Amino acid sequence: MIAEILSTGDEVRTGAVADTNAAFIAQRLEDEGIEVARHQCVGDDVATIAEVMREISRRAVVAVVTGGLGPTADDVTAAGAARALGVELAPHPGAMAVVERFFARRGWPVTDTNRKQGLLPEGADCLDNPLGSAPGFAFTLGNCRFYCLPGVPVEMRAMLADTVLPDIRGRMGQGLGIRRVRAITTFGIPESTVADRLAGFEAALAGIRLGLRAHFPEIHVRLYISGNDEADLACREQQAVDWVRRRITPFVVSDEGLSLAEVVGRLLKARAASLAVAESCTGGLISSWITDVAGSSYYFGLGAVTYANAAKQDVLGVSPQTLARHGAVSRQTVMEMAAGVRRRAGATYGLATSGIAGPGGGSAQKPVGSLCIGVATAEGVRAAAYRFGANRRRANKVAFAAAALNLLRIVIDQGLAADLEERGKPIYADCLELDGGGDRAPGSEAEK
Amino acid sequence: MIAEILSTGDEVRTGAVADTNAAFIAQRLEDEGIEVARHQCVGDDVATIAEVMREISRRAVVAVVTGGLGPTADDVTAAGAARALGVELAPHPGAMAVVERFFARRGWPVTDTNRKQGLLPEGADCLDNPLGSAPGFAFTLGNCRFYCLPGVPVEMRAMLADTVLPDIRGRMGQGLGIRRVRAITTFGIPESTVADRLAGFEAALAGIRLGLRAHFPEIHVRLYISGNDEADLACREQQAVDWVRRRITPFVVSDEGLSLAEVVGRLLKARAASLAVAESCTGGLISSWITDVAGSSYYFGLGAVTYANAAKQDVLGVSPQTLARHGAVSRQTVMEMAAGVRRRAGATYGLATSGIAGPGGGSAQKPVGSLCIGVATAEGVRAAAYRFGANRRRANKVAFAAAALNLLRIVIDQGLAADLEERGKPIYADCLELDGGGDRAPGSEAEK
Repeated sequence: MIAEILSTGDEVRTGAVADTNAAFIAQRLEDEGIEVARHQCVGDDVATIAEVMREISRRAVVAVVTGGLGPTADDVTAAGAARALGVELAPHPGAMAVVERFFARRGWPVTDTNRKQGLLPEGADCLDNPLGSAPGFAFTLGNCRFYCLPGVPVEMRAMLADTVLPDIRGRMGQGLGIRRVRAITTFGIPESTVADRLAGFEAALAGIRLGLRAHFPEIHVRLYISGNDEADLACREQQAVDWVRRRITPFVVSDEGLSLAEVVGRLLKARAASLAVAESCTGGLISSWITDVAGSSYYFGLGAVTYANAAKQDVLGVSPQTLARHGAVSRQTVMEMAAGVRRRAGATYGLATSGIAGPGGGSAQKPVGSLCIGVATAEGVRAAAYRFGANRRRANKVAFAAAALNLLRIVIDQGLAADLEERGKPIYADCLELDGGGDRAPGSEAEK
Repeated sequence: MIAEILSTGDEVRTGAVADTNAAFIAQRLEDEGIEVARHQCVGDDVATIAEVMREISRRAVVAVVTGGLGPTADDVTAAGAARALGVELAPHPGAMAVVERFFARRGWPVTDTNRKQGLLPEGADCLDNPLGSAPGFAFTLGNCRFYCLPGVPVEMRAMLADTVLPDIRGRMGQGLGIRRVRAITTFGIPESTVADRLAGFEAALAGIRLGLRAHFPEIHVRLYISGNDEADLACREQQAVDWVRRRITPFVVSDEGLSLAEVVGRLLKARAASLAVAESCTGGLISSWITDVAGSSYYFGLGAVTYANAAKQDVLGVSPQTLARHGAVSRQTVMEMAAGVRRRAGATYGLATSGIAGPGGGSAQKPVGSLCIGVATAEGVRAAAYRFGANRRRANKVAFAAAALNLLRIVIDQGLAADLEERGKPIYADCLELDGGGDRAPGSEAEK
């Protein structure tokens, strides 16, 4: 069963907006076992839209179209569909009702501009839009069923889940059986290496399809499992998870698809433990990820973004001697930062980072990409030092923050092992050799 | 002059990865005055790639293709191009040199798998890849010039800028004249309202094209200006900037396309001033944005993510009475937070946030979306309180952080005016009425 996706709109055509709708729809269709053969994007032009719809109708049996359903003159998806069908646009009572309900709820009058949204190609079926003013519509051209949805992501997603996918399932009958998607989160291993390590999966685990999804710097392995028997499905799913785990160990963060910050949050909650974070080079990114998780205030109380050395001394109690002797980017400094923020917040765990995100500030001994991580617990304090290869500031910040959270995850899970540094090392990073030299003036820009 | 974009790869086709390459390429081509009529994505399949290339050659004169140039069996763009051209793949000395140079630099042996990357369609021209192991290539089919680039964004971007765009410019001759793109950053006004306010632009400023680009929560207005005379171009550009400014005032953040964090950084640098930030509901996001700007350690020394009320008291010196009487989400608390972090860091400016990002924690008086911002300077301290409409945690964090940075921007630029709250109010937010009631137990999850 072949599907295609069409996005319309000059803002997507010109690249002003990336076509994330197409990726979202493709995922959902693939999750249903429907092959997405092609997606494309064209501008707000009636003739082009009609032409592309006719092309698609010759290749696919399902097409999901987004965009161009708004009230203004450049919203022409309905006109394009009408031309492809060789019919006229006409007021559709159901579509008009969607528009009127939207305005009535807000106590606004319906304008003539908005009444345009109640015009559909003759013979098309209206698709309700519970969140917006633009009704969707469906029609059949050749052998292909077209579903036209608004481009607003939240409206599109709701209509896809509530209306389009059930309709497709109904049309397909029960042939698709039970379907399940399982995600496994990995960190510390690049996408190409994940792919290499999972070579042979399809041969070993017949009937389960494998996909990779990059959420930089996490890589998610996705298993698409289908069948007709619940118990058999669950058994094969577990076999597949075990198979992947064996090949990817020790880089598996979660076999439920959770992010690093979510996994750390769950571990902390399960232990009724708390966390405090001291950040230099990551500049607040770790704290921001942690607080993206709802309920994080149960275990997270304090993050100290101590960018200046003076702040490291004042807020965290790092000693001026340590900074002078070893520099801000050193195992000694991050250990004092981690212990200091843990003590200050009265937290179970303290996590600290200091490194050189670039683009400037590197030296021969501490090049751009250098990162020191400190972890403090009731047992004591340990540090790890890595060198990452990226030379872009934002990419380094992201890799640094993930490496630190991952090391914390290992410590919460396994305690402060002696080989912590090696165990937490991303495959694409080197362990950093640092001698004691304080190679920078305290507080200098160079060490950020 | 019509261009099309083709992305190949199962990871894009299935939605595992959003097609951000297509958006990037479309922007760059449009910036050059080349109209991108269509972009599409197909999987790793020789026959489909060949078919789509033939289709494109009948419509476009330029095509940029990304993906499928790697060493593994599923990388088949070169094979697809060869089939479209009706030729064979053959070793290309230039392409083989790119592969060998890549491995020689790393001291690795060239494998047979990688030698496959040196095979190009007969008659194709090699495009150098300075960053990766996959050479690109170019060929002509019908009237269309195809440029095939790797899918790795950093490699693709470098090759597009260094090789493809200059080659296109050369082929077009001088016909395109001088081209310039000017960006104007706005905050606090939704994209649809920006569009409404700029209605009539094209009539008023003939020959200048307008585009909007959403970098949520900033909206960037882009002006595409072309001509043959530098002085005339500069004059028309300034007229257009002034026209846009008049319509969008007071929501213009930068008429050079800078982000809020970059503008704040420049203002601080120009005044040799420094900043300290205290964050509750924004959880480190403001600090992270500030430190995304290279050189930010010149003006940013301390960020305190005081998620717990205990941390607000301990690190910032907020009084327990204020928290008990007014609650953490109050003008009084954020004023004490801002003054406290400014004092602690010895900074010129202190900025503080406290609010309710959701999904839980709202009350009738302080619903989800409530935000208090405090700004402290040598002149004194002021607060603003807004209510935003989003009910998603991450969207609220982003809107909150931007609103706080914007208020700080106004204060650095204009001082602590009495009407600060009104002046910094996003058009889609309401000013929040808060009475003094401490409606939450201190430290409760409810106020995050």
